[in-house]
Amino acid sequence: MKIVLTGNDLTVAKVWEIAVNGAEVEISPEANERLEASRKLVYELVDADVPVYGFNTGVGWNKDHTIAKEFFEDFNRKLIYSHSFGVEPEASEAEVRAIMAIRLNCLLLGYTGIQPAVARRYAELLNAGIHPVVPEKGSVGEADLTPLAHIGLVMIGEGEAYYQGRRMSSAEAHKLAGLEPVVLGPKDGLAIVSSSAFSAGEAALAVKELEELVEMGDVISSLSLEGLHGNTSPLEPEVMAARKLEGQAKSAERMRAYLAGSDVYKRYPGKPVQDPLCFRGAAYINGSLRDALAYAEKYLVIQMNSTDDNPCLLLDEKRIISNSNFETTTLATAVEMLSIVLSHVSRMSCYRMLRLANPELTKLPRFLSHDGGESHCFGTIQKCFGSLDTEIRHLSNPCSVDYLSLSGSIEDHSNNTPLVVQHLRQIVKDLQYIYGMELIHACQAIELRKQRDGFALGKGTAAAYEAFRRVIPLYTNDRPLAPDVKKAYEFVKSAAILKSVKEVL
Amino acid sequence: MKIVLTGNDLTVAKVWEIAVNGAEVEISPEANERLEASRKLVYELVDADVPVYGFNTGVGWNKDHTIAKEFFEDFNRKLIYSHSFGVEPEASEAEVRAIMAIRLNCLLLGYTGIQPAVARRYAELLNAGIHPVVPEKGSVGEADLTPLAHIGLVMIGEGEAYYQGRRMSSAEAHKLAGLEPVVLGPKDGLAIVSSSAFSAGEAALAVKELEELVEMGDVISSLSLEGLHGNTSPLEPEVMAARKLEGQAKSAERMRAYLAGSDVYKRYPGKPVQDPLCFRGAAYINGSLRDALAYAEKYLVIQMNSTDDNPCLLLDEKRIISNSNFETTTLATAVEMLSIVLSHVSRMSCYRMLRLANPELTKLPRFLSHDGGESHCFGTIQKCFGSLDTEIRHLSNPCSVDYLSLSGSIEDHSNNTPLVVQHLRQIVKDLQYIYGMELIHACQAIELRKQRDGFALGKGTAAAYEAFRRVIPLYTNDRPLAPDVKKAYEFVKSAAILKSVKEVL
Amino acid sequence: MKIVLTGNDLTVAKVWEIAVNGAEVEISPEANERLEASRKLVYELVDADVPVYGFNTGVGWNKDHTIAKEFFEDFNRKLIYSHSFGVEPEASEAEVRAIMAIRLNCLLLGYTGIQPAVARRYAELLNAGIHPVVPEKGSVGEADLTPLAHIGLVMIGEGEAYYQGRRMSSAEAHKLAGLEPVVLGPKDGLAIVSSSAFSAGEAALAVKELEELVEMGDVISSLSLEGLHGNTSPLEPEVMAARKLEGQAKSAERMRAYLAGSDVYKRYPGKPVQDPLCFRGAAYINGSLRDALAYAEKYLVIQMNSTDDNPCLLLDEKRIISNSNFETTTLATAVEMLSIVLSHVSRMSCYRMLRLANPELTKLPRFLSHDGGESHCFGTIQKCFGSLDTEIRHLSNPCSVDYLSLSGSIEDHSNNTPLVVQHLRQIVKDLQYIYGMELIHACQAIELRKQRDGFALGKGTAAAYEAFRRVIPLYTNDRPLAPDVKKAYEFVKSAAILKSVKEVL
Amino acid sequence: MKIVLTGNDLTVAKVWEIAVNGAEVEISPEANERLEASRKLVYELVDADVPVYGFNTGVGWNKDHTIAKEFFEDFNRKLIYSHSFGVEPEASEAEVRAIMAIRLNCLLLGYTGIQPAVARRYAELLNAGIHPVVPEKGSVGEADLTPLAHIGLVMIGEGEAYYQGRRMSSAEAHKLAGLEPVVLGPKDGLAIVSSSAFSAGEAALAVKELEELVEMGDVISSLSLEGLHGNTSPLEPEVMAARKLEGQAKSAERMRAYLAGSDVYKRYPGKPVQDPLCFRGAAYINGSLRDALAYAEKYLVIQMNSTDDNPCLLLDEKRIISNSNFETTTLATAVEMLSIVLSHVSRMSCYRMLRLANPELTKLPRFLSHDGGESHCFGTIQKCFGSLDTEIRHLSNPCSVDYLSLSGSIEDHSNNTPLVVQHLRQIVKDLQYIYGMELIHACQAIELRKQRDGFALGKGTAAAYEAFRRVIPLYTNDRPLAPDVKKAYEFVKSAAILKSVKEVL
Repeated sequence: MKIVLTGNDLTVAKVWEIAVNGAEVEISPEANERLEASRKLVYELVDADVPVYGFNTGVGWNKDHTIAKEFFEDFNRKLIYSHSFGVEPEASEAEVRAIMAIRLNCLLLGYTGIQPAVARRYAELLNAGIHPVVPEKGSVGEADLTPLAHIGLVMIGEGEAYYQGRRMSSAEAHKLAGLEPVVLGPKDGLAIVSSSAFSAGEAALAVKELEELVEMGDVISSLSLEGLHGNTSPLEPEVMAARKLEGQAKSAERMRAYLAGSDVYKRYPGKPVQDPLCFRGAAYINGSLRDALAYAEKYLVIQMNSTDDNPCLLLDEKRIISNSNFETTTLATAVEMLSIVLSHVSRMSCYRMLRLANPELTKLPRFLSHDGGESHCFGTIQKCFGSLDTEIRHLSNPCSVDYLSLSGSIEDHSNNTPLVVQHLRQIVKDLQYIYGMELIHACQAIELRKQRDGFALGKGTAAAYEAFRRVIPLYTNDRPLAPDVKKAYEFVKSAAILKSVKEVL
Repeated sequence: MKIVLTGNDLTVAKVWEIAVNGAEVEISPEANERLEASRKLVYELVDADVPVYGFNTGVGWNKDHTIAKEFFEDFNRKLIYSHSFGVEPEASEAEVRAIMAIRLNCLLLGYTGIQPAVARRYAELLNAGIHPVVPEKGSVGEADLTPLAHIGLVMIGEGEAYYQGRRMSSAEAHKLAGLEPVVLGPKDGLAIVSSSAFSAGEAALAVKELEELVEMGDVISSLSLEGLHGNTSPLEPEVMAARKLEGQAKSAERMRAYLAGSDVYKRYPGKPVQDPLCFRGAAYINGSLRDALAYAEKYLVIQMNSTDDNPCLLLDEKRIISNSNFETTTLATAVEMLSIVLSHVSRMSCYRMLRLANPELTKLPRFLSHDGGESHCFGTIQKCFGSLDTEIRHLSNPCSVDYLSLSGSIEDHSNNTPLVVQHLRQIVKDLQYIYGMELIHACQAIELRKQRDGFALGKGTAAAYEAFRRVIPLYTNDRPLAPDVKKAYEFVKSAAILKSVKEVL
Repeated sequence: MKIVLTGNDLTVAKVWEIAVNGAEVEISPEANERLEASRKLVYELVDADVPVYGFNTGVGWNKDHTIAKEFFEDFNRKLIYSHSFGVEPEASEAEVRAIMAIRLNCLLLGYTGIQPAVARRYAELLNAGIHPVVPEKGSVGEADLTPLAHIGLVMIGEGEAYYQGRRMSSAEAHKLAGLEPVVLGPKDGLAIVSSSAFSAGEAALAVKELEELVEMGDVISSLSLEGLHGNTSPLEPEVMAARKLEGQAKSAERMRAYLAGSDVYKRYPGKPVQDPLCFRGAAYINGSLRDALAYAEKYLVIQMNSTDDNPCLLLDEKRIISNSNFETTTLATAVEMLSIVLSHVSRMSCYRMLRLANPELTKLPRFLSHDGGESHCFGTIQKCFGSLDTEIRHLSNPCSVDYLSLSGSIEDHSNNTPLVVQHLRQIVKDLQYIYGMELIHACQAIELRKQRDGFALGKGTAAAYEAFRRVIPLYTNDRPLAPDVKKAYEFVKSAAILKSVKEVL
Repeated sequence: MKIVLTGNDLTVAKVWEIAVNGAEVEISPEANERLEASRKLVYELVDADVPVYGFNTGVGWNKDHTIAKEFFEDFNRKLIYSHSFGVEPEASEAEVRAIMAIRLNCLLLGYTGIQPAVARRYAELLNAGIHPVVPEKGSVGEADLTPLAHIGLVMIGEGEAYYQGRRMSSAEAHKLAGLEPVVLGPKDGLAIVSSSAFSAGEAALAVKELEELVEMGDVISSLSLEGLHGNTSPLEPEVMAARKLEGQAKSAERMRAYLAGSDVYKRYPGKPVQDPLCFRGAAYINGSLRDALAYAEKYLVIQMNSTDDNPCLLLDEKRIISNSNFETTTLATAVEMLSIVLSHVSRMSCYRMLRLANPELTKLPRFLSHDGGESHCFGTIQKCFGSLDTEIRHLSNPCSVDYLSLSGSIEDHSNNTPLVVQHLRQIVKDLQYIYGMELIHACQAIELRKQRDGFALGKGTAAAYEAFRRVIPLYTNDRPLAPDVKKAYEFVKSAAILKSVKEVL
């Protein structure tokens, strides 16, 4: 598979294809033309000798230094050196691919004036499978200078990279792949490092997983509702119409579709009028996640298809102009909101498990024990999802504003987008574990109910149930739970359950 | 002024008119019809004897209790009693008006089945100026039962209220206003308390003030940029077009308009290429505030014009149906994001003041001292805005998810919308103080610059400067600052500066 | 009552006497001598013309300015002016008394060199009942310059004060009290403002209330344990000896004393082996509060009896020396820990109420309804204490490190002690409300149990129960709860329950 | 080296020896006797048939189940199974050794009644180098059941372990080491899992590193003070005596010793009276760390040398008694305070680096560039330490109270000690990186100062400087910084600098 990059239409799904599934990239002809035209303008400006930040001047506090033409290579190489001091851990190869694809796409808009050969090198490295070693810590946002410098280091033949899954020096990787390192010219150093592509890359992967998690949330809470034999009235379309909230209306619609034909719609003597809010409000809170995700994704997609370069080259006007387009505060704070909403989603899931383990509410054995309580079954697992929920709560604390004023009072704002995004990624992972455990609970409750009452599942939930049962069987006696928890997590991460429901709906 | 409520088109501006400026309200004829029709349906359902939550059953965990028809008044009165236990401090009268207007507007949609006379009583109390005493603490969201019960208490002639600005018993207020307390019937108790109107009312006032603060932010940072004699290139339209972010583009457009004709566009020898980020990024971060505010306001307006009743009466279908429409998690988390963005806005303002006090950046006297440093001038004031900024940072910590599972495992979700909104209101107030102090700094810097260099202001900023100078004169020697800080705060709160710039633009 | 201040032995209890109960103060003869000797040294140093910070130089960034002798009065008055810009709300009169008493006590150590007449003026104002109006916001710690300047303002006859409970100008208050305002000399301005007495004063009142709350905690959880008819084994002395933790051992000892002779020790058929942790761990978590309180109080008492002056006058060595003794980071972070522990204490109390409302655990009616469920009783009150618990959780978020670097890179550390302490004070108040509600629950449960089973209380708990019942009677039917909640809060705030148990033990 | 465990005198230093340096352990004879006596008592109680929690009853909510004698092995094995569901990542082998050593030590007190052969097995596994694979997530405190169950799993021959650094099945590891898995009897399962040894083990390693970091802090800030050529007056003993705070007095004493004989004591024309607070307050804030560390370590050492078993066997009284000794809230909140104080320590270090890069304060080249500004030198590294400081700030947010009520309302308190401790461990690591970067700055500033002025270092700082220079040379031109940052981190982690100063003092 080959994905054509134009600068204008990169999506989260395309980034995932490139990053995770290894799709190759190609630069569109129009984009190539823009690259060439911009570079031409750079040289005109060099000849005109107008002082331009980071171009023929130093960067940051050193903006008062002048760079003579003959030192462009030296200046740009040292710029890469002096910016490459990231701290462990390292980004995964998939993350590095996402970052490179996004950096390349934004360069294609022609606002940077990067040497076309350097821009094309991103594509060549991606297609050759050379993935620079990129430390994840060291950027405060306001352009992810530090981690991106490590990509530049590899481009000029220094530092380390993975090639065919093996770690080696950049020089060796280039040799094995039959490539020569690039030689930097004016503005190339800044063009490589002055971008939020690192944050955007990691965010794109998280958002892609969240797009799936939000859909899975509706499937899983439908299964849990069947496990409880709860009420469906909160899902009715008229209720949703009265409230006018798009997110929850969509989740309710999904849940109705999954539950179509289910015995959950049957009343039984003594059925309570209302269920615990974690069931009753499942579609509502997952709807809030839809609302927040739409907001965050909107700004992420803008980020991946616009320029954040400073200074910014204006082709039509033949100017290069200082700005603050590296500000990603809307995106950072959107992600912080997303994290807060996820803390609600996580807690709802945890409470559903706690309720499913409670015989008073389910009329099933305590802790969903198959033997009616002889085995411990899902007693202590509550501490496991409880501790992950606490971690999510902690990760949802904001940090975007907790920056220091740097560089002699000049860099007195930041947004910590990288850290904010890394918190989101860990939340996503924790939630995948939690949802795995909810599936274990819901399917156990359903199976106990089936065995006792012959309970029929909905059209969608039946397919989901079958898919999960192929991975994790009923607990009939205590067995070490850790391997199952891991398998359930991987099942969620694979999003296999979505394929199974799509096939039947 | 009289505002017609229809259930469908209440805005933040209308709420402000009713709440702060004392506008009267009127119920539209269509809305009145819906009220009557809904009530008719309620009695049909009572006769049919279908068990409906909070109607002919108890509420919360007591949903398994049945309420006989003859006990409707008693049940509903006691429901009000048992829910009225709010804790100090009390909401202001303006807040109470906002709350009542919103509760009434949502009732007009006809999903509640409230007794029409009770619904109309909201309008009568508002128009008579009877404002129940409403304690602010005691609600966890998921409907603001506690504070709203205090309104119900006054409606039935108990509790306390303000009438003509004087606090008295509800009974006395009714007598003085020539009204009889209402007598509650079926579902009336729940109709009064089961709503998020308390949160929505307080949020509406905060959002109205934020609409003004976001506009003032552009004026104030324009003045500060002139105080610095800084760079305008980050505001250029081409830079904004390249970035595709609506919020920052709008703020930049505003700032360009305010600064039109200013000497800030003149270069001077040795002018730096780039200013500190607090100046360079002012429009960008204020733009992030625009983005977040638009998101929050969208959901607030939905909240004010849709139903959050549970159970919800469906007129066309002649049904009453259990749901979770009292969930306000999207709104609560939107407000939490808004608070985080405001912590950035606050910090930017503080840094601008710190920079304006720094002679290295301004080439003006240290701490903007008129006598070149003999007086302390704006030295210690830094601790004042610094401490408010710290408070804003603290208030921006989220709390929506920090709830307890209540009512015997049934109410196991909340969103703490009231507390979230109260944090926002305090942030707004703190920011009004901070912006007042920034005006003190910016105008002092401008005046010193004018005296020395004859600096001409922009069209908009000149008007703003004049307006502020009518309130606070230049500091020529140390004088107690506290009274000026208070005056500057009130100037910001009045939004007078916006009127002054609108007159000239 | 008159309290003699020596500089060395001020306690939290003495501060409370002065602040809340209006005790007068007197300066010890030794302290008076130290004041005179220090002042003499100041004049010797003035004559020697050594440059000393804030003395014959400017302060903060202005430390490079020199102050000539003839301008001492002018300089010190302006220093007061330029530091007095606090922001509302105002401290209470009791708080202002606490602050002044502590400031005076620390001055008595003789490290400041303040004019003795100015030092004595603190005592005179306290004894005359002149209480300056002190705004609470505006200090970042590192000396509470801002609020303390408002005290200085009143001392020199400017600003406002309360006299005999009436607010008036400082000039009028002086006239009415027959005092002349002071005239400042060298170092007096800094001596007045450069201190953390504002934070220490507010902290002292909070700590005094906590000393009582920690004792009440043991009484109240003993009552709740009886309300539950729970297990006492976790309180046994051998269990405590095995764990070696002083705090929990002390609380357990107290609870055993209160419960001596109680029917709670009787087993009944079907009694569970273990109670919910909120009961089982009550003494343990209250013990953690004892541990944290001891740590915080240790550092508070040091703060009240040592010098935080900068520069610091060394009498024996005839030197004046720059330092950072205004650092109160140990105290600030101790208070932050205390707040976190209080969030545990609050949550334990809330859970005990939730459990007492649960018939499964108590075998009493749901929500402790006297009529077995007809009345709502303590259903919705859960939202009230739940919301206060959430507020406490939020207030327990730390903020000591969230400062800005001020004053041209010179003041690049703060600890925000005032805000930290204000959070603690609000937590204390919220907890007093929560404990009031727990008393309502516990005594209702006990009374229901007594009526049904003839349950006998312990020696201490019986006295406590009687004391509370004199204020709040049994709920036999729904009545508005708000007034009772307020009364219960005031009962807790008065600590009357401690007197009642002390009388019988 | 062999460390004898008695139950009473385990220290953090001994844990480090066992965990990191691989010391073997031995059980003292008295402890062995206690083990035997306790086990005897267990069998007496089994025969007496008294119902005891987790012994002949189920655990948690299942405490109402009875376990017959013949099912002890089955019950205890399944207890291990059902508790072993931890989530990645895995604890390091050193951490697992620390955990096992502490669990063993507490067992030796004889309150548990564990089978002596099982207790001794901890020692045998430690001495054989069999280290169970222990996932780090899954415990909410209140005993670390989840991770400890994974140790139990290995003990009974299931699960996985490292042996001689290689990962393998428990069965294989036993075979290779010539051991037979143990067979569990009554109470053994609970004895293995019901302990906070997991948290205590990880905390012990963190505290050991902090003991070194607090000492290094004084060395490093002494070097930075020389790099600045700053003022020493804040360190004088009289200043410390006046303040009465032990922590800061100790740090000041250390700094005076390190700086003895340094040219930092020499004045130069134009030297400012006071330095930025990050220098002036270095000893003070490091002193606050000493205060907090002493508090936390006190409770950690109690934790390592007392019992947290529930139920608790009382040998003398021949009883077994339910309790809550697994509460570790004092320790958890002490660690949370420690984390907050570390956020201050980190920020002080960051500000010192920012100041050292500022020529106005140092009179050295900007960013400490050797060539006077041609190279970028320490410009962008500010983003690296800034981002780590932000992470520390985030990790210092408390989470101990953010738990869910689990196990059917029974387990309604937790303290999240494991997560709290893991946050501390990451903070320690981040601070080691930050201190590494401060060393890079301080030594660069010193070397530039030496080259220009011939600056002589103090006795201690000279040794420290030499030690660091053996690892990282002067920057004379830009070179990739990442490798040096890593080396500096490892230098700090090794605490080599402390050895170097001890040799000369």
